Amino acid sequence: MAELRTYTKEQLLDFKAKLEKEYAEYKAQNLKLDMSRGKPGSDQLAVSNGLLDAVTSRDWEDDASNHSLEYRNYGLLTGIIECKEIFAKLLKVPTKNVIVCGNSSLNMMFDYITQCMLTGSGGKPWKDQGEIKFLCPSPGYDRHFSIAQYYGIKLIPVAMTGKGPDMDAVEELVKDPSVKGMFCVPKYSNPTGETYSHETVERIAAMCPAADDFRIIWDNAYIIHDLAEESDKLENIFDVLKKYGHEDMVIEFTSTSKISFPGAGVAVLAASDKNIDMIISRMSIQTIGYDKLNQFRHVKFYKDVKGIKNHMKLHRNILAPKFKAVINEFKSQLGEYKIAHWTKPNGGYFISLDVMPGTAKRVYELCKEGGVTLTTVGATFPYGIDPEDKNIRIAPSYPPVDELMTATKLLCLCVKLAAVEKLLAE
Amino acid sequence: MAELRTYTKEQLLDFKAKLEKEYAEYKAQNLKLDMSRGKPGSDQLAVSNGLLDAVTSRDWEDDASNHSLEYRNYGLLTGIIECKEIFAKLLKVPTKNVIVCGNSSLNMMFDYITQCMLTGSGGKPWKDQGEIKFLCPSPGYDRHFSIAQYYGIKLIPVAMTGKGPDMDAVEELVKDPSVKGMFCVPKYSNPTGETYSHETVERIAAMCPAADDFRIIWDNAYIIHDLAEESDKLENIFDVLKKYGHEDMVIEFTSTSKISFPGAGVAVLAASDKNIDMIISRMSIQTIGYDKLNQFRHVKFYKDVKGIKNHMKLHRNILAPKFKAVINEFKSQLGEYKIAHWTKPNGGYFISLDVMPGTAKRVYELCKEGGVTLTTVGATFPYGIDPEDKNIRIAPSYPPVDELMTATKLLCLCVKLAAVEKLLAE
Repeated sequence: MAELRTYTKEQLLDFKAKLEKEYAEYKAQNLKLDMSRGKPGSDQLAVSNGLLDAVTSRDWEDDASNHSLEYRNYGLLTGIIECKEIFAKLLKVPTKNVIVCGNSSLNMMFDYITQCMLTGSGGKPWKDQGEIKFLCPSPGYDRHFSIAQYYGIKLIPVAMTGKGPDMDAVEELVKDPSVKGMFCVPKYSNPTGETYSHETVERIAAMCPAADDFRIIWDNAYIIHDLAEESDKLENIFDVLKKYGHEDMVIEFTSTSKISFPGAGVAVLAASDKNIDMIISRMSIQTIGYDKLNQFRHVKFYKDVKGIKNHMKLHRNILAPKFKAVINEFKSQLGEYKIAHWTKPNGGYFISLDVMPGTAKRVYELCKEGGVTLTTVGATFPYGIDPEDKNIRIAPSYPPVDELMTATKLLCLCVKLAAVEKLLAE
Repeated sequence: MAELRTYTKEQLLDFKAKLEKEYAEYKAQNLKLDMSRGKPGSDQLAVSNGLLDAVTSRDWEDDASNHSLEYRNYGLLTGIIECKEIFAKLLKVPTKNVIVCGNSSLNMMFDYITQCMLTGSGGKPWKDQGEIKFLCPSPGYDRHFSIAQYYGIKLIPVAMTGKGPDMDAVEELVKDPSVKGMFCVPKYSNPTGETYSHETVERIAAMCPAADDFRIIWDNAYIIHDLAEESDKLENIFDVLKKYGHEDMVIEFTSTSKISFPGAGVAVLAASDKNIDMIISRMSIQTIGYDKLNQFRHVKFYKDVKGIKNHMKLHRNILAPKFKAVINEFKSQLGEYKIAHWTKPNGGYFISLDVMPGTAKRVYELCKEGGVTLTTVGATFPYGIDPEDKNIRIAPSYPPVDELMTATKLLCLCVKLAAVEKLLAE
């Protein structure tokens, strides 16, 4: 094994033949494996099963008159107090600045951006301001980009640096008053796994965008989703914003989608007094309230922040070996050829694999034909276009370990094969 | 007791003194009663308690690999099939035309109107069409009106006739292309309790509004919420629409908010193929999916439409006596004075009380001072303005019977007192 770029044409052809033979063997197995979705596996779902038993009819059997606990009826628009208190502690913000809603933080982000479009984020409605733009640190989360794209907001990619978005670029771009916001996954970012550094958070909080109705979607989706013993340290954004009087610039979101159940967790928002008031004024028209019984279920199952953190260790015990196995395989199969880079995240749900530039789409096709579904190449970039055609988002969580290993082996093979093809065509 | 209008001034003054004495006695009791909200009482919540035990960890204990039942994870955007099937049968539409979402049909209506505003209901986005209007059969549901008002849609009141909205007026009004829609609660309408007649439904379905992006919010909130032995008969709107090829004109909504739990039920939408496609295209950006475990809970608890219907008898057994008691009290206390009219609904959650024109606000104030909260007068009309100041929406469901009777007695007293005051001032 040596650096692939040093191979002679003959060596490349030999290697190609060998890889193609291996590939044919995989194909013959008619595999049907999936590394595309950041979806917990059944072993992870099992650790939250107790949630299903946390609230029962007995909770109201002898207590029909206790109205403070009447979570079965209408009311309590912004969530039940016990649940708000837990998330306030987790996010380190005052309880009054927290709203607990239904099962989807994505839905809350969609709602917030919809509100900005139709009634504004503080200034004129965004829909009445001509072409507007959003900064999209990339690679990033495709569903963020989709929301903005759905509303015709122009997506501006910003490179990720390993410590968060390229802040020199961001600071320059926000001088444009048509730039109305930015998507951030500040901890264990999707898909690179990086956590915004102290300096990045400080520079974000200090920004004075030309648009005074500029808003950051601070999607703290992986806030306690550690894979390593030691958690990455992320500054509390609202503490830093306070120093600059910029609390209105950020709306923070999180959820238990990858703590309890992806389909049936609770979603949470934290924001400044002013933003909370604006959001509640719309919510009070939008609904009478969210599912308080499910909020109560989470309160009874986790009890407090410590309970949630302990629970996350169960997820880590399942996930960390999967991540380790994939990364080890990458190292042993791809390492010395020097045709790929990959992240080694301390948390989150993804490994970001950069293959030889110009080959990611080919790797995707080869994998697909071989029976392994990967995240669509480009999905992690605005408009689905990876300018270098090199990034692949790997989601190790869903398949059982044996399937994961087979899929990873085939993936490595495809990365090599695509690279050889590329070099031969040059 | 005789018709109040035949009283001499002296008789009125005598009567007033007597009523004021009684009123003072009520006030001295420091009552704190509420007839304002269409909220099930605790006895009604109790009949659904089994829902809390319908899904437990045992549902997945031996079945971790059964992916068809993997409702704990992401997926199934439009709801779980078993749940969709039950509601398809209840609404008498094909399953493919049903979407089951979260806990709030009001939220689904809000979302649908938001979608129409921003991206249109079939034509240009409503926001780009200048001033637009919605027909509001009145008295009606304040939260419908609030949604339209929130978006700056002009509210046009249309009278209710006892068989639904005044269709002569509606047919005239829809000739205006800026009229984009109408709110309907077709069965046991909120608050009048009337059910749209065969003719009304036929005329609605046959309409050819000038706006071809006209949409009816068909809020079938009380679809099986009977108080009488015999259910009012409502035509299936989609059957009738089909005759005219107008299936795209109506979006139907219902929920289990007053079947299972108001805060934690499931909400449902039925629509034409074309509308379903448009709604799903937005939903797929908005969320990854709704709470399938709660949908599953409802499936396991009710099993089928028959199960839901049987369950509704338990609600009826609690509600019907409350309605009867209030109506009997109205009759005995107000009857011969001929100063008020009230509905005797066969279902739903409200009694609509019309007091002497020009006295509803005064009745509200008197009740409030006396310790009984009524629905804000005017709330059932667009912009909160009851042109005749006479309608009061009575919600008998929430208070226990003894409290309900005390509140009704005081209410009757206030209706009489306000009428006497009015006559004396004339």
